[in-house]
Amino acid sequence: MEDLIKFSKENRKEFHQVPEIGFTEYITTYLIYEKISQTKFDIFIGDDALSTEDRLGIPSHDILEKSYKRALNYGVPKDFLNKIHPGKTGLVAKLDTKKSGPHTVLRFDIDGLPIEENESQTHIPFTEKFISKHKGEMHACGHDAHIAIGISIATYISQHINELCGKYTIIFQSAEEGVRGAKCYTKKGWLSDADYFFSSHVGIVSEKVGTVAATTSNFLASSKFDVELYGKSSHAAANPQDGLNTLLAASTIALSLNGIPQHRDGLTRLNVGTLHAGQGRNIIPDYAKLECETRGATSELNNFMFNRAKEIIEHGAKMYGCDSKITIQGHAPSASCSKEMIQMIKESNKDNKNVINIIDEIAMDASEDATVYMNEVQDKGGKATYLLFPYELKYGHHHPQFDIDESVLSVAVTTFINILNNLK
Amino acid sequence: MEDLIKFSKENRKEFHQVPEIGFTEYITTYLIYEKISQTKFDIFIGDDALSTEDRLGIPSHDILEKSYKRALNYGVPKDFLNKIHPGKTGLVAKLDTKKSGPHTVLRFDIDGLPIEENESQTHIPFTEKFISKHKGEMHACGHDAHIAIGISIATYISQHINELCGKYTIIFQSAEEGVRGAKCYTKKGWLSDADYFFSSHVGIVSEKVGTVAATTSNFLASSKFDVELYGKSSHAAANPQDGLNTLLAASTIALSLNGIPQHRDGLTRLNVGTLHAGQGRNIIPDYAKLECETRGATSELNNFMFNRAKEIIEHGAKMYGCDSKITIQGHAPSASCSKEMIQMIKESNKDNKNVINIIDEIAMDASEDATVYMNEVQDKGGKATYLLFPYELKYGHHHPQFDIDESVLSVAVTTFINILNNLK
Amino acid sequence: MEDLIKFSKENRKEFHQVPEIGFTEYITTYLIYEKISQTKFDIFIGDDALSTEDRLGIPSHDILEKSYKRALNYGVPKDFLNKIHPGKTGLVAKLDTKKSGPHTVLRFDIDGLPIEENESQTHIPFTEKFISKHKGEMHACGHDAHIAIGISIATYISQHINELCGKYTIIFQSAEEGVRGAKCYTKKGWLSDADYFFSSHVGIVSEKVGTVAATTSNFLASSKFDVELYGKSSHAAANPQDGLNTLLAASTIALSLNGIPQHRDGLTRLNVGTLHAGQGRNIIPDYAKLECETRGATSELNNFMFNRAKEIIEHGAKMYGCDSKITIQGHAPSASCSKEMIQMIKESNKDNKNVINIIDEIAMDASEDATVYMNEVQDKGGKATYLLFPYELKYGHHHPQFDIDESVLSVAVTTFINILNNLK
Amino acid sequence: MEDLIKFSKENRKEFHQVPEIGFTEYITTYLIYEKISQTKFDIFIGDDALSTEDRLGIPSHDILEKSYKRALNYGVPKDFLNKIHPGKTGLVAKLDTKKSGPHTVLRFDIDGLPIEENESQTHIPFTEKFISKHKGEMHACGHDAHIAIGISIATYISQHINELCGKYTIIFQSAEEGVRGAKCYTKKGWLSDADYFFSSHVGIVSEKVGTVAATTSNFLASSKFDVELYGKSSHAAANPQDGLNTLLAASTIALSLNGIPQHRDGLTRLNVGTLHAGQGRNIIPDYAKLECETRGATSELNNFMFNRAKEIIEHGAKMYGCDSKITIQGHAPSASCSKEMIQMIKESNKDNKNVINIIDEIAMDASEDATVYMNEVQDKGGKATYLLFPYELKYGHHHPQFDIDESVLSVAVTTFINILNNLK
Repeated sequence: MEDLIKFSKENRKEFHQVPEIGFTEYITTYLIYEKISQTKFDIFIGDDALSTEDRLGIPSHDILEKSYKRALNYGVPKDFLNKIHPGKTGLVAKLDTKKSGPHTVLRFDIDGLPIEENESQTHIPFTEKFISKHKGEMHACGHDAHIAIGISIATYISQHINELCGKYTIIFQSAEEGVRGAKCYTKKGWLSDADYFFSSHVGIVSEKVGTVAATTSNFLASSKFDVELYGKSSHAAANPQDGLNTLLAASTIALSLNGIPQHRDGLTRLNVGTLHAGQGRNIIPDYAKLECETRGATSELNNFMFNRAKEIIEHGAKMYGCDSKITIQGHAPSASCSKEMIQMIKESNKDNKNVINIIDEIAMDASEDATVYMNEVQDKGGKATYLLFPYELKYGHHHPQFDIDESVLSVAVTTFINILNNLK
Repeated sequence: MEDLIKFSKENRKEFHQVPEIGFTEYITTYLIYEKISQTKFDIFIGDDALSTEDRLGIPSHDILEKSYKRALNYGVPKDFLNKIHPGKTGLVAKLDTKKSGPHTVLRFDIDGLPIEENESQTHIPFTEKFISKHKGEMHACGHDAHIAIGISIATYISQHINELCGKYTIIFQSAEEGVRGAKCYTKKGWLSDADYFFSSHVGIVSEKVGTVAATTSNFLASSKFDVELYGKSSHAAANPQDGLNTLLAASTIALSLNGIPQHRDGLTRLNVGTLHAGQGRNIIPDYAKLECETRGATSELNNFMFNRAKEIIEHGAKMYGCDSKITIQGHAPSASCSKEMIQMIKESNKDNKNVINIIDEIAMDASEDATVYMNEVQDKGGKATYLLFPYELKYGHHHPQFDIDESVLSVAVTTFINILNNLK
Repeated sequence: MEDLIKFSKENRKEFHQVPEIGFTEYITTYLIYEKISQTKFDIFIGDDALSTEDRLGIPSHDILEKSYKRALNYGVPKDFLNKIHPGKTGLVAKLDTKKSGPHTVLRFDIDGLPIEENESQTHIPFTEKFISKHKGEMHACGHDAHIAIGISIATYISQHINELCGKYTIIFQSAEEGVRGAKCYTKKGWLSDADYFFSSHVGIVSEKVGTVAATTSNFLASSKFDVELYGKSSHAAANPQDGLNTLLAASTIALSLNGIPQHRDGLTRLNVGTLHAGQGRNIIPDYAKLECETRGATSELNNFMFNRAKEIIEHGAKMYGCDSKITIQGHAPSASCSKEMIQMIKESNKDNKNVINIIDEIAMDASEDATVYMNEVQDKGGKATYLLFPYELKYGHHHPQFDIDESVLSVAVTTFINILNNLK
Repeated sequence: MEDLIKFSKENRKEFHQVPEIGFTEYITTYLIYEKISQTKFDIFIGDDALSTEDRLGIPSHDILEKSYKRALNYGVPKDFLNKIHPGKTGLVAKLDTKKSGPHTVLRFDIDGLPIEENESQTHIPFTEKFISKHKGEMHACGHDAHIAIGISIATYISQHINELCGKYTIIFQSAEEGVRGAKCYTKKGWLSDADYFFSSHVGIVSEKVGTVAATTSNFLASSKFDVELYGKSSHAAANPQDGLNTLLAASTIALSLNGIPQHRDGLTRLNVGTLHAGQGRNIIPDYAKLECETRGATSELNNFMFNRAKEIIEHGAKMYGCDSKITIQGHAPSASCSKEMIQMIKESNKDNKNVINIIDEIAMDASEDATVYMNEVQDKGGKATYLLFPYELKYGHHHPQFDIDESVLSVAVTTFINILNNLK
């Protein structure tokens, strides 16, 4: 077990240095591939791992190409890259013990963030020299730890195949940030006969390391979407009457979106995060783009927001004679963990020395596309949970000085192993 | 002629005392009826004078009833009133000389304004005791003078039928204010074979009395319309999500209407003059009403404004899930006087001692529904003009101290008589 | 006790017939005066009862005069009326037992609502002929019951003065609707040495009659305010440049108010309930008025909303060169009941046969200006609670068919008497 | 004269190939310098030519550096470049005949546009191989012709110094596009004792080549300005209450700017050409930038628009708790040519064979910062005009296929020479 923990820590440091934003995890996928190749798991990548048309929020051609070239330079073999390019990153590992038993699916998210990592003397990845090598990208959410945990779990299962039963599927999911990647894995059918589903997050709340939440509540449902408006340009002084003004349409839409009423049944949110319109000072703007998101305490509340937003956008464009297009760039429903798993998680870990306290439930108060899998599994009669492995957070997630307490890796790895040994 | 001028002055003072707003000219119509009954003209009132369904901007039931009762109290016979009630006011007088000649149509507008007349020592109608007896209504635009001129012309034609030829139609039109009444007379067909059309206005520009403009330019086309929005109320704190908010829709529409671009081809205007929405502080407003108008230097420019406005209103309502309804309350196109009439007008008045100067054209820079008749006549091959009879204006039209220079009546009456004697 | 309950029912029916909206309770105040005059309580009215300048949301002069005349016609003596006119309605009754003991303050609200009472065969006040005699006004919230309970409590205290100790103040408060009246009583100083404060509401939640909530939670803090905008009118076609457009300012403000962000810490609400702007279709609107309210789960949250709103209103007006004025028309803070009173309330009523169940707390989820007193008393070291006396609600509060289950009166009267007998 | 015309044509083709946008005319300035060095004119560049702090709308550091390097690569000597870098481009040439006579100032604008030149077979600069060598920049307004005319005039004056009298100043002005450059030359004082000022434009209206307008009317006054809004970011779901939302402020401002009323006195225009706000979908936007312009038929009308806009921007930002900053990026007043010059221009060219018709005045209906000089000269008692040299325009100014009729060069050069020979 100590080896596995050491292995986790080394892997996490390796992955920390090559953060790649969602759907550009070319190096990351290859490194996972190399590690999992050492196990008995079957490996699926590219079109074999995911449903290409169900990816949401794929980066631009330029970004994909740049990351592809970076991976080539890094040494990722070209034929490997071509299987996962463009944007078909991530990897699924599957192992059948050939013994009767449940099908257990574990999911680990692998993407980094577009954040420039801090280089101060108090930031351990900097002082200990495993800081991001990708300027402007950073594992600032702990997905590097998630990858490392996943690899250790796969290694453990492979090493103990004789003591285990049933089937195991481990999904190393691309593009969790922006809740973009989950859909293309679920649509590929990996969960069709899943009995158990597990995912987890390090951090989230600040508690003594060794604390474990058996389940997580308050996943906010969320829709991420872009709005594009198409109008008509004209010279603003000479021929104003010929223009169809997307900038005014966008402004009207932004203001009206913020007027969607609040809801009796719980928290809702809407944000227009960016607005870009127009091409020149003296030209009626003929194109505008807005990046938006809605959230809700439940999927129903999120749908309430999103449906009202659609109406506002469509007609707000038409007010100015403009056309509009909405593109979904991410989506996460709300979900509830299977409460009946709490007891099992607690019992299987009652002797785990890395664990000091198992709490029934901690609130997430954020969005996570693990919920896509959770709903899928529960809809088909399986059970699903999302564990939290807190530690004392010095800086919040997505902060340039975000860092994990390394010992959380041993908590997570041992907890998962104990659970797996207990599943029937 | 002196008798006729005296008659004009007396009549104008009589009508000045009983101003009635558009489509409530019950007393006014009856007084005109009495005067014209003294002539050889045939008289048409109510459904015989106008096309009921083509009236625009009819006042509310309450206002019509109140004015009806006032007329009864005044002494207007009930059977007469019932022919012109509700809102079928105005009168058409027709006379056929039975001699070959042109069909000449003259139009005089008869309505007052919802303005309270001034009672200061400098206001002649007050000091000479012919001030409005109808509190809150006033002949503040000079239509009392127009009526008086029209009656004198009819009287003259009737007295000189042997010296004149052709046919004469005199329209005493209700509801010019708000450009509401013209349509229902033209639709009745009075102009179907008109060779000449004349209308006129006293005042407008400040010039020495005796000045005459043979034609008028720059009639602004205009559309007057009400917008009603229908949403859904709900308790603003307990169930905000159930509301469909007409107040926000109305606000969005008002702002967007003012964003309609200006036009290369000339002056345009738009005003949202009133906005009323909501029923209580803690209720999502389910109804809103806006009173609007568009204008344009030409009918095309006015249509540009109005069509853009319609698009904004329809979709602005739908942004908030609301329904919208637009009701036209008034309309005037732009029009151009027949320039070939200038020479005839000048020549026929070259010996008129009441006239000191005949100008070819003066700009109106306002809306007037005489343009409805002008276009109708010209479209069918006839000629049309709109004369101005300026005087030195102390207060502008629609001012509580507006007053005419009484001697403008002699200018107008003699000018028209000279013209009629010259038409072939 | 049975007499007192019968008395309560009769009184409630009497008051139900003369509902008067806030600050016009002339008849109501007089009837209370007559009843309390039968007790040993000292009575304070008009300037002796309340701080005139601390009333919020006083009705217009016209409404006050109309209600004054109605009261005169009803038979209220003129000299009595003149003490409570204009708008100084409500009454405070005070009794000192001259024996050492706590000062207990009870508050009952007395105003009706601007709602027209239903006249169907299923509406008991109609079938039993005690329906509102004031067309368009109705006791649709149960304040008639509150008055009746208060009178019975005063009567009981007066009758049992020998068995009781300390001092008693009973406030019959005007204008609770719109949270307008509480301030002027607290500012008068009635609570300066209060040890206990009680208020209550019948209904609110639907439970079997006999259920009592010892405390109430979730009072929403709320601010009610009017916004007036002052601009400059001009002719919309001839001189648009001279106008300062309050209608556009109001629209901009309404939209921006709805863009105030939601708050992490809990529920907030904002509503612009009415907007009235402009005087005519072709005039730039120079005046606008909006009726608004904010709410928050706490006073802090309500203040967050109100302060942001003020900023928006002030600068939204200035965007259009207009002036703005905000007038507070009502205010209620949030408040918490003194939990330590629960035990005493339960114990003192454990043998009350009218009571079937005493619940610790029920959530209000609405605004109530009883919170003004509660905060005042607690700030000075006293204890305060707000009881609920539910019954099975057929129609919600403020509905034209709202009615109480008459037997709730016996629950409330006996519960209060038991509590009073227990206070030391 | 034929040599001079040939020289003009060659020069125009040379300059056409090196278009540089405003304040980056490094190569252009050097080429002018080389040509003028062949004459007797004294040359002023950099800080000697213009007032650095009075430049408006200077490009970003990156753009300036890129153009500087391009000029270095082109072969412009580094010491020359360093005198005109950063952004101190343009050149003033001065010659004193030492004979008594008027001071005549001529101004030629030299900047290109950010437009990609067309490469079709119908575009002469492409087929004749003198197309722009600067991808994305183009002389699409004819300023290449203006430079060529200016050089020929300088050459002529230098060659004929003995026949001429007085003083001559020729300003080769940078950055006319966006009306940015004029101010820094006038502020330098070149016009302090000017008796005559001339500038001109080729094209503008489509007329037979050889047509000349002695004066130009309808210069639109214009202000170009950027608006920056500074707010506060926060996580849109977790802490929306902490954000100060510049995107909503910008939207509100954009809509309200378009609600500035039209003006009785003439044409006004306002355009918000671009709006950029926000940094990410889930972040409250803390920065926004808008590029705007106002115009007016007169400076008064433009000021009316700009002053209203300032008020809207300042308070629109404050509505959302944001700060705002307005940066003037260009400005042109309106101006009127000195009518008394028409006769002299006509007479001096009555035998000019290149000229077929001299019109008194043609309307510009656009903005031009030559007006800055015109007002300056006239304010001090001098005379100023702006000539037009039309030809048959196949494509409008600023079109990727814009081209001049080369023979317009001979019209312009000969007209100017004839005028100069006539000035006393």
